[in-house]
Amino acid sequence: MDDQLIYSTLFNVIEFLGTFAFAISGIRHAAAKHFDWFGGFVCGVAVAIGGGTIRDVMLGVTPFWMTSSVYLVCTVMAQMFVIVFARYLKRLDNAWFLFDTLGLALFTIAGLQKTIDCGHPFWVAIIMGCITGSAGGVIRDVLLNNVPVIFQKEIYAMASVVGGLAYWGFVTAGLNVSMAVVLSFLIICAIRLLAVKYHISLPILKGEE
Amino acid sequence: MDDQLIYSTLFNVIEFLGTFAFAISGIRHAAAKHFDWFGGFVCGVAVAIGGGTIRDVMLGVTPFWMTSSVYLVCTVMAQMFVIVFARYLKRLDNAWFLFDTLGLALFTIAGLQKTIDCGHPFWVAIIMGCITGSAGGVIRDVLLNNVPVIFQKEIYAMASVVGGLAYWGFVTAGLNVSMAVVLSFLIICAIRLLAVKYHISLPILKGEE
Amino acid sequence: MDDQLIYSTLFNVIEFLGTFAFAISGIRHAAAKHFDWFGGFVCGVAVAIGGGTIRDVMLGVTPFWMTSSVYLVCTVMAQMFVIVFARYLKRLDNAWFLFDTLGLALFTIAGLQKTIDCGHPFWVAIIMGCITGSAGGVIRDVLLNNVPVIFQKEIYAMASVVGGLAYWGFVTAGLNVSMAVVLSFLIICAIRLLAVKYHISLPILKGEE
Repeated sequence: MDDQLIYSTLFNVIEFLGTFAFAISGIRHAAAKHFDWFGGFVCGVAVAIGGGTIRDVMLGVTPFWMTSSVYLVCTVMAQMFVIVFARYLKRLDNAWFLFDTLGLALFTIAGLQKTIDCGHPFWVAIIMGCITGSAGGVIRDVLLNNVPVIFQKEIYAMASVVGGLAYWGFVTAGLNVSMAVVLSFLIICAIRLLAVKYHISLPILKGEE
Repeated sequence: MDDQLIYSTLFNVIEFLGTFAFAISGIRHAAAKHFDWFGGFVCGVAVAIGGGTIRDVMLGVTPFWMTSSVYLVCTVMAQMFVIVFARYLKRLDNAWFLFDTLGLALFTIAGLQKTIDCGHPFWVAIIMGCITGSAGGVIRDVLLNNVPVIFQKEIYAMASVVGGLAYWGFVTAGLNVSMAVVLSFLIICAIRLLAVKYHISLPILKGEE
Repeated sequence: MDDQLIYSTLFNVIEFLGTFAFAISGIRHAAAKHFDWFGGFVCGVAVAIGGGTIRDVMLGVTPFWMTSSVYLVCTVMAQMFVIVFARYLKRLDNAWFLFDTLGLALFTIAGLQKTIDCGHPFWVAIIMGCITGSAGGVIRDVLLNNVPVIFQKEIYAMASVVGGLAYWGFVTAGLNVSMAVVLSFLIICAIRLLAVKYHISLPILKGEE
């Protein structure tokens, strides 16, 4: 019982930090393009809830943000934070990076489990986990008229995919679900942290069009 | 009974003018980028029905344009109008602006009411009203490879949001629904007209990326 | 019975070739923008399954690629093909063009029939056929930060629309469904082949913004 409470509190804290960091990322990219407050908010929302919304629409369920206002409140807080503390944002870069990594790992696993709960096979769940963690950033880049950063920079979405495969392996091997969640969470974080620390990227595709 | 008829006729007339103006906006932007007739039509359709389609997909209902051909017929008429009267379009700019404003107000309130009818809370409805009125223009700009204009120019989507909040306030204060509809319709129109007349924009976000 | 088997085998072969060619198109465009392997795969997937996914979401059914892994396996194969045979891709341009044309025709008709099976009227089905065949390429161009090629180049999506209208005409005229399928399939292929051979484009829209 106590364990359950610790887990769910931890989940909520990480989810909030992750959503906050995702929203901050959208709003800061919008600021770099001189968007107005509304444009910044939309970009923040896009990163924070975009991936999960695409997942839920494809799963045929009500988008998660329509059932609880916490995600929008979190984005509003991120917006106010960016407006008030604009000049201190850069100094906090390590914190944003850390929260973003936690968010990526958590959203991946949340997407994975929701898809399995809907009765879909594991390979669909792995894709949905990856979409939950990464599609928001792609929508942000499309709205900003940029080339999506995750298609060219350090490993990001692939950490989701590997984490999803690991989760699958653990569950298939008979590990209990909590254990599989914690381990694949740590694997995703580790891959992302190592990728950025050592500038590890996937190979670039060769060839003229 | 008579009142009902006047209301519904007025609704249909404004809806047609709004859809027409939205479609014209998509087709003209496409013309500025030298799109062909098909590309122009797709951009016209995107503005005219894009926002409502995103709303309906998130609400889990059949997209509205699939239940009545009037929206596509209206876009076809807009397309023919642009092709035949290309040289007179600019002189009608005041008319387009007026119809577009009527459309923004009407689509916002239509989106608001449909969301409430689906059983969602008011804060979801306000967001859906804003999406219904504004998302089409964002899709147009994405298809044209432009930065979405509503993130940088005069107040547009915020007029929807304020109108939605007003509607909420009126209904909560016990006003009857018809009255709340008319008043928030007028508020949205007034905000948009004043924003353009006096070049009122939201503050720009500060900060390097 | 034998006829049925031949038809369904033919359908599967053409579907595989079409999906393969669609995926190749996405991956090659991604390579031209120096995307990494993950970015290339996402662009390949976007072209191969994007149109059908939009269709299925609007129809309110589970996206087709979630019910069978063949489409993703096909995209993985296309990805490996591009990586291994990068230098030979250009020499096979005629094959890609042919497979792409077969895919356009097949996906159009598959989209058309699925929409009718869902109980929608013919004009909705024609639009859905066009979306199934063409929307994937638009998503690819949006992800690559390009202006969508089908809005400016040779006739592509209009071949779908004409094929859909032809199918409608044949069925209305009392032709049996198999016959209508084959004829409209050939019409779409013929329009696309002639459009590219003789550089036939739709008229360009005139006018400043």
